[in-house]
Amino acid sequence: MKKSQTNPSVSYSFTVRLTYPNRIGMFARIVSTIGRCGGDLGACDIVTPDAKLMTRDVSVRARDVSHQEQIVAALRRLADVKITNVSDRVFLLHLGGKIAIQNKVPLTTRDTLSMAYTPGVARVCEAIAADPRKAWQLTIKGNSVAVISDGTAVLGLGDIGPEAALPVMEGKAMLFKEFAGIDAYPICLRTKATEEIVATVRQLSVGFGGINLEDISAPRCFDIERQLQEQLDIPVFHDDQHGTAVVVLASLLNALRLTRQKLNRLRVVIAGAGAAGMAITRMLQGAGLLDVVVCDRQGVLHPKRPDLNSSKAWLAEHTNPRRVSGRLEDALRSANVFIGVSGPGLLTTKHLKRMAPKPIVFALANPTPEIMPEDAARVALIVATGRSDYPNQINNVLAFPGIFRGALNVRARQITEAMKLAAAKAIAGCISPRELSPEYIVPSVFNRDVAQRVADAVQHAAMKAGVAGRAKR
Amino acid sequence: MKKSQTNPSVSYSFTVRLTYPNRIGMFARIVSTIGRCGGDLGACDIVTPDAKLMTRDVSVRARDVSHQEQIVAALRRLADVKITNVSDRVFLLHLGGKIAIQNKVPLTTRDTLSMAYTPGVARVCEAIAADPRKAWQLTIKGNSVAVISDGTAVLGLGDIGPEAALPVMEGKAMLFKEFAGIDAYPICLRTKATEEIVATVRQLSVGFGGINLEDISAPRCFDIERQLQEQLDIPVFHDDQHGTAVVVLASLLNALRLTRQKLNRLRVVIAGAGAAGMAITRMLQGAGLLDVVVCDRQGVLHPKRPDLNSSKAWLAEHTNPRRVSGRLEDALRSANVFIGVSGPGLLTTKHLKRMAPKPIVFALANPTPEIMPEDAARVALIVATGRSDYPNQINNVLAFPGIFRGALNVRARQITEAMKLAAAKAIAGCISPRELSPEYIVPSVFNRDVAQRVADAVQHAAMKAGVAGRAKR
Repeated sequence: MKKSQTNPSVSYSFTVRLTYPNRIGMFARIVSTIGRCGGDLGACDIVTPDAKLMTRDVSVRARDVSHQEQIVAALRRLADVKITNVSDRVFLLHLGGKIAIQNKVPLTTRDTLSMAYTPGVARVCEAIAADPRKAWQLTIKGNSVAVISDGTAVLGLGDIGPEAALPVMEGKAMLFKEFAGIDAYPICLRTKATEEIVATVRQLSVGFGGINLEDISAPRCFDIERQLQEQLDIPVFHDDQHGTAVVVLASLLNALRLTRQKLNRLRVVIAGAGAAGMAITRMLQGAGLLDVVVCDRQGVLHPKRPDLNSSKAWLAEHTNPRRVSGRLEDALRSANVFIGVSGPGLLTTKHLKRMAPKPIVFALANPTPEIMPEDAARVALIVATGRSDYPNQINNVLAFPGIFRGALNVRARQITEAMKLAAAKAIAGCISPRELSPEYIVPSVFNRDVAQRVADAVQHAAMKAGVAGRAKR
Repeated sequence: MKKSQTNPSVSYSFTVRLTYPNRIGMFARIVSTIGRCGGDLGACDIVTPDAKLMTRDVSVRARDVSHQEQIVAALRRLADVKITNVSDRVFLLHLGGKIAIQNKVPLTTRDTLSMAYTPGVARVCEAIAADPRKAWQLTIKGNSVAVISDGTAVLGLGDIGPEAALPVMEGKAMLFKEFAGIDAYPICLRTKATEEIVATVRQLSVGFGGINLEDISAPRCFDIERQLQEQLDIPVFHDDQHGTAVVVLASLLNALRLTRQKLNRLRVVIAGAGAAGMAITRMLQGAGLLDVVVCDRQGVLHPKRPDLNSSKAWLAEHTNPRRVSGRLEDALRSANVFIGVSGPGLLTTKHLKRMAPKPIVFALANPTPEIMPEDAARVALIVATGRSDYPNQINNVLAFPGIFRGALNVRARQITEAMKLAAAKAIAGCISPRELSPEYIVPSVFNRDVAQRVADAVQHAAMKAGVAGRAKR
């Protein structure tokens, strides 16, 4: 059976509380109803067992919201079955938020209160007043990152506002904690104005060891990041750009280990000229790529295009050495690598057949790739996506926790190109030559070695580049 | 023995690692040396027991830093005793910061990752985009408070800068968590400009359910709080003002239960015309006080003083109905109550003797009160301070956790005068008529009932005032 983009998923799972007469065959009817609707049955906990009436909480994965509703409607139609509650598991998990503050010492005695707060804390304040760098060791600063968004480019949802961006930023903070032990706090901003965002982040940055910009739309994201990094002495890192670029480069390096090709001899086409497309282009160029063509929805970027904003104009100027023009399919001719950071269903196998033999295809649009992997695989040698249900998932979480861990460890003032390159090589190096295969060029997001190896590589690169505030810990 | 302000304290405690020959009498020499120096011996853990050489970690409380040094020097002079390490317990407790982020669910499986982050989180984002009020229940917003400072009036230390203010703000966040289960995050600002502070807090406020301003100097703190409260639909609360005022009023209400006096018949003198003095004055006036005189370092505030800033000019205009002038001691004549929020050693018993018989004295300067309690008690009927080592400690921690807990519970848009008054009455009510005595007018900071009772009273008052965003939970 062809894998579709609409397999039942935990992202659309719900728990339904059912009460029904406790007799043989009743539960089988329920289970078969769910199965007939295409729902994927999970836990079936008994709530109140009773000789006459049975109540169960049944968890079901659906394909999407309307599929959830179909399944519930089918269950409602069953004679003698009563539905008392339907709860969406994703919303349940979000109730009250996903992170909390934890005190490292309890304030239950006079002694701890006197040391952690007044009067004892005054001596610590005085020590920092005499040397503000001591805030790195005596406060949360040395382990903290602000996750900042204005909510203008959230996931694939676009400009949904700062309130609606909060669940993503909280999720990001969870990833920082889970994968790198970093204390990150989500801060969503009420403004979209570049100057106001820069001013706000500058003012609030005192207590943070790093700034992770997130889901800020292009081209403002470029200016915001640049201005902040110029003004602050802590790393400012727009993850949609650099996190993606680092993992793409890591994956490409491993792909080239398989195909025995050299980056500087390749032709690469990138679809998508937003934050990620820009950063991938610059990162690959920094790693040695010469022939890269970038396309947006209107086609190939070249200097004669009259409709380009500042960042696209930069790309047109600094890519496309053969001055290709036309549409994406024109650019693909004889290309070795396609990297999509654009939208769903952009490509067909027909397009891929225009490429050089055995191409490499990274179709990273989420949740629906530019071309579904089973289709791409008919032409391509190596296929990667952003999805967890296919091989080779290109996921930022492989990069940013380790990058910030390494930066914080040595109190880096910025994250340089060399540090990002070191991170990419460290990620690639997590797969041994023996393990490497077309279906395994990217380590699993649950590989706990990755963040540690990335952190080591990044802190080493920071010290070498002279941007470290102290020796490695 | 007269209690002095320099008792050995855990705020000046240290742990010293000593190695010495394991023979009878050696440890006694060490202990008696510490005692002779006036150090207060704590734990004496054995690190490595050995037939010949013993190593112990000995914890000692000193009076201050130079006393610490004296004790260590005396130990160094002991023959055969080697000191291998001296560590300050307060600084040890601060290493790496005092709070951390905690994930409510671990991200160790694909399932939780898909629900807490992509792709599942997208549906939660969409729900909030459709109705931003849902951020209250589906994100940390509903339980979070930003603790904001510019570092200009930190404890008694003054303008020590935002980095040096961080340990206090972290401590404050700990108090929020410990006493009210609130997730508070410390944010120190790089600016002292009123407009920039207001703009920054407005931009970053999206993800917070309340703003606690802290240690911002007068008179800027008044403008900053007012402007922010006008612009935001979440509570903005300058704790140095209102937290202090609420606990002072609570304590005064209980004192008056003992003296059977009425607030509107009293003469009150307040020393200190900063943030706390202003708020106490207004709060007591709101509760019915008519005759209050405020003094600053230059003397009594009255309308003819030429040297007054905007907030002091307001006070001069709205207090001092008998138009007293002169110095603090002039104001004290026939006063029933003295409230000091100023500096150390301002008063003598001679001053107190000018007051009406059996006066009430709240000497709140920290760490050294306007008059030491043992001196005040020779004249006053009731004495309170800000210190934990005397009876009747007036401490903000009795107020702000419960006030914010109540406000968050009903999503209050602001903290009104009625809510603060309700909080003060709730704190006062934590002491039963049977328990009430001149030495027990304020509940202990470790009385866990206080925050709960304050929260209940505050959320009730918020609903009554029509500033609640939802019914009580």
